[in-house]
Amino acid sequence: MSITLQRKLQTYANIILMTNINTKTLKGFRELLPMEQMAFNKMLETIRDTYELYGFIPLDTPVLERAEALLAKAGGETEQQIYQFTKGKTDYAMRFDLTVPLARYVAEHERELAFPFRRYAIGKVYRGERPQAGRLREFYQCDIDIIGKGELSLSADAELPSIISSIFTQILPTNTRFTIRVNNRKILNGFFSSLDIDQVATMRILDKLDKIGKDGVADELASTGVAQDKIDVILAFSEITGTNTEILAQLTAMDIDNEQFKTGLTELSEVVSDITQIDLSIARGLDYYTGTVYETTLDEYPQVGSICSGGRYDNLASTYTSSVLPGVGISIGLSRLFDQLKALELLELGASTPTKVLILSTLTTKSQELSGELRSGGTPTETQQLGKLDKQLKYANKLGIPYVVIIGDDELTNNNYTLKNMQTGEQQSLDKAGILAII
Amino acid sequence: MSITLQRKLQTYANIILMTNINTKTLKGFRELLPMEQMAFNKMLETIRDTYELYGFIPLDTPVLERAEALLAKAGGETEQQIYQFTKGKTDYAMRFDLTVPLARYVAEHERELAFPFRRYAIGKVYRGERPQAGRLREFYQCDIDIIGKGELSLSADAELPSIISSIFTQILPTNTRFTIRVNNRKILNGFFSSLDIDQVATMRILDKLDKIGKDGVADELASTGVAQDKIDVILAFSEITGTNTEILAQLTAMDIDNEQFKTGLTELSEVVSDITQIDLSIARGLDYYTGTVYETTLDEYPQVGSICSGGRYDNLASTYTSSVLPGVGISIGLSRLFDQLKALELLELGASTPTKVLILSTLTTKSQELSGELRSGGTPTETQQLGKLDKQLKYANKLGIPYVVIIGDDELTNNNYTLKNMQTGEQQSLDKAGILAII
Repeated sequence: MSITLQRKLQTYANIILMTNINTKTLKGFRELLPMEQMAFNKMLETIRDTYELYGFIPLDTPVLERAEALLAKAGGETEQQIYQFTKGKTDYAMRFDLTVPLARYVAEHERELAFPFRRYAIGKVYRGERPQAGRLREFYQCDIDIIGKGELSLSADAELPSIISSIFTQILPTNTRFTIRVNNRKILNGFFSSLDIDQVATMRILDKLDKIGKDGVADELASTGVAQDKIDVILAFSEITGTNTEILAQLTAMDIDNEQFKTGLTELSEVVSDITQIDLSIARGLDYYTGTVYETTLDEYPQVGSICSGGRYDNLASTYTSSVLPGVGISIGLSRLFDQLKALELLELGASTPTKVLILSTLTTKSQELSGELRSGGTPTETQQLGKLDKQLKYANKLGIPYVVIIGDDELTNNNYTLKNMQTGEQQSLDKAGILAII
Repeated sequence: MSITLQRKLQTYANIILMTNINTKTLKGFRELLPMEQMAFNKMLETIRDTYELYGFIPLDTPVLERAEALLAKAGGETEQQIYQFTKGKTDYAMRFDLTVPLARYVAEHERELAFPFRRYAIGKVYRGERPQAGRLREFYQCDIDIIGKGELSLSADAELPSIISSIFTQILPTNTRFTIRVNNRKILNGFFSSLDIDQVATMRILDKLDKIGKDGVADELASTGVAQDKIDVILAFSEITGTNTEILAQLTAMDIDNEQFKTGLTELSEVVSDITQIDLSIARGLDYYTGTVYETTLDEYPQVGSICSGGRYDNLASTYTSSVLPGVGISIGLSRLFDQLKALELLELGASTPTKVLILSTLTTKSQELSGELRSGGTPTETQQLGKLDKQLKYANKLGIPYVVIIGDDELTNNNYTLKNMQTGEQQSLDKAGILAII
């Protein structure tokens, strides 16, 4: 059989095979093309660098955990979403967040860690949700938490907004304003307690205020048996607005005789600053938080919801250890945020490669010398053998490479290089020093 | 029930619960303590930064793939190691390397990519191997590949050693020498073909030379029916040594009349340079490679084996597409490398936190002002409310934070800050400008 015939048959075999294998990612899973991946990574790096600048320690725990360890902390709905399987004698589960692994880690390594333990974690988590618009089954979370042992100063709660602010100032386009909203669960709990109504149920309903409106909340509260006079007080309370100072004054003026309420009020006044806005409607759906709660919203795009949330919890790891580990943390759902910014056209897309200079040459030593110097100076540089120049310039153009250097026969004769600015199309003949000066 | 009694009961309940939940990671999975995690991340960042400096594009594909897509490319042994499961109607499999996902990605996005496609991928892969010394079930791979469409210049093969060299010069301690070994499969294939013996079987045996020695290889060859005179030639061939020039001369002098051999010899002479060493014993176990092959070894620690391997392949994605996609790539098994360097005491461990300055203060505005300026200058800074100074200095010491700044009542009166150098123990009273000048 001739080589050509063999190749042809191989190609046909591949085509037949190809029709059987689906190369798309699974539903709810996704991969990006280079330009988007570059933009995604830039966001991720900004978050990571900022977390480190605030002295958070990196932590990387396994994606697979003991099923028993994860399930002990998962609620009903979450449990159904967990990817679990058995291999050999082991029951595995894929992590569905970064907080449960943190709790397990701290319980396991408690004696080796220094407290307060400031850790950041950036990684993929997995939730087998029904795929629907905007829901991913594999997505990135970027978390920081500060964990105390026995106690944790309120200054930790006060610190987090400045980190949120620093990150979104860098990630969002200059004119996109955002607001870091804070509240304190003790104020809500104390308030509801003073009205003698169920806290958790009431807060769950109140949390929907943005979605179902005032009337919707009133209806739902009524349907759970809350009296109309109390509903009026609840709605009035939830609509207290103004500057932080005004809100704190109104809360103080309510003169509610409940210890929890008073503690919450004191804590909130210590946590707020000029970069946060008190929003008494924020409850956070979870029963998890016990003090300060945060949400971050885009001023012009309220429909996006919170892009960075978190709060204070009394005890991180009660499932795993008898030590009391209070903590405070925030989380950025990076994959979702990326999708939302893209949909709003707020994503700044740039090049499809890190490469800043493409060197095309026939003689490798000259090219190696120049590329070496460029890279030493921190400039990402790619080299290719000079071939079909048109095709190679098209390649540089498609990837968004700003500069092309040509070292061909002419250039070697003149002992100069040709530098082409791909944006302006301008071409210059320069020596090595001249090129290094421009780039 | 009193609060105290309630707490006590909760504690007992937790202790009982705790005995049931194992907080250790699963066998073959692991997590690091802060000091090691910092060192691990530093290595990872060096690799990532170097890949980008050479113009490789980041790619991040899902950890979970369609089982059919992964299994189509997995061999017998690998297939048994794959973590697979079914949820709903979907058969999932966890990736066991980064090459198969690359092949699927390129096949899926072929029309949107620019070729040669230079991509890097750093991520976790999963192999359900029997856990034994040094074998992990979850580990990091750091890969680069250059994929051509239809063709790929040999200059790509020639480029990779300089990337390997740059990375290990940075990662390894100064006195730890390494060697980048290269060979070409065509030389081996052509050579064996000229002897009229089975290439794949012979190379698999030859690949064990380091492990079982010359006699072991001779025995194994004999047991597969290779005649003694051919065994002598094979062993003599595999022991050709010298400088690159000497080896190339010896190969040429053999005057083997085989086209593949001659092509391999030409290719090898184009790929070698002063940072590589030809080693004819390198075959790479896989049937996968078709031209250049690389291995990187530590000169003083041959028992470690190859710390960075790879090679040229004729067609990346024949399982998924009829396009011919030749490529060349290398992979660093970072988790394994980290463990080996640690075992050899070649790992440079430093601090347990990115924090360079810990500010302890009673008045938050002064502290915020100083921390803000330090962070703007790129210095990771942590702030804490001034409490028990002894305990806080112990914390700084345990984490390896180099500087502590104290802004207490005395300092506010003097309008100066106290700067403590944690390594020397030296303390200075300075104003803000003085502190910024030192740090």
